[in-house]
Amino acid sequence: MLGRTYEAQNCSAARTLEAVGERWSLLIVRDALFRGATRFKEFERNLGIAPNVLASRLQSFIRDGIMEMPATPHQGHQPPSYELTEKGRDLAAVIVALTTWGDRWAAPNGAPIEFEHIDCGGPLFQEITCSACHRVVPNKHVATRPGPGAVATQKPRRQTVRPAR
Amino acid sequence: MLGRTYEAQNCSAARTLEAVGERWSLLIVRDALFRGATRFKEFERNLGIAPNVLASRLQSFIRDGIMEMPATPHQGHQPPSYELTEKGRDLAAVIVALTTWGDRWAAPNGAPIEFEHIDCGGPLFQEITCSACHRVVPNKHVATRPGPGAVATQKPRRQTVRPAR
Repeated sequence: MLGRTYEAQNCSAARTLEAVGERWSLLIVRDALFRGATRFKEFERNLGIAPNVLASRLQSFIRDGIMEMPATPHQGHQPPSYELTEKGRDLAAVIVALTTWGDRWAAPNGAPIEFEHIDCGGPLFQEITCSACHRVVPNKHVATRPGPGAVATQKPRRQTVRPAR
Repeated sequence: MLGRTYEAQNCSAARTLEAVGERWSLLIVRDALFRGATRFKEFERNLGIAPNVLASRLQSFIRDGIMEMPATPHQGHQPPSYELTEKGRDLAAVIVALTTWGDRWAAPNGAPIEFEHIDCGGPLFQEITCSACHRVVPNKHVATRPGPGAVATQKPRRQTVRPAR
């Protein structure tokens, strides 16, 4: 379990990777967010992923509240539907960030997809902005400082981390 | 190799995950970006990661141009330094996006760290903005459309992006 791998890291990025850092997880979320996939067979076909891996990912999304299986009125043998919750849809910014980097550094033929604003059709960009001076902040002007959760859950550094394999 | 796993996906997010989707990769980048780590022993100590895994990750970062080992004047037995390139530093937005999600959904004691603007000390936020209408765009108003790289390397099945729901 990836969750146990990062246990000693008091870090929200590590917590996110526990939830969606397994292989294929974020591409399943991508297909649900931006390709409207909801059925097991759709994910399987779009991704070319082994069914047992897909089943395991969907199960962990349900467990973690990233997806839900809405109760539907009985309609013959309709297959179950996997739908992102608000928590799941909130991963959009992660997908956009991954895509932006890939567009810049690993897309020699140009961006395979672009993000557009549903309201006006305009192209979208991700920016880091400062809520004090309201400026757009370049990467190299981003620093970190301890937040309110810095001390509360801090563990001794190497308490229970098992080596990744 | 993760790279082979996502080979059939004409998707920049998949390309990014090939480069940094392996276990521990993004936390190594995090430590380099925000904790100033440059030495093997620093990464090993901070992360509690097995040396063979760390060596493999650093090696792939060097190969992919995410890190470099600057030539230093010979100073006794100074250990080599691993430093992020511009390509590596550009992953900051990915780390910020992962952290933002974790702060919101997996930090019951509050954010362990906060991002601050080096220039003014203000707190930083990540936003998706529209370059046409200049508004901040909520997740559910983000759709996708084929970009210039959609056709060039596209496999038949994934030719068209279906609209977000």
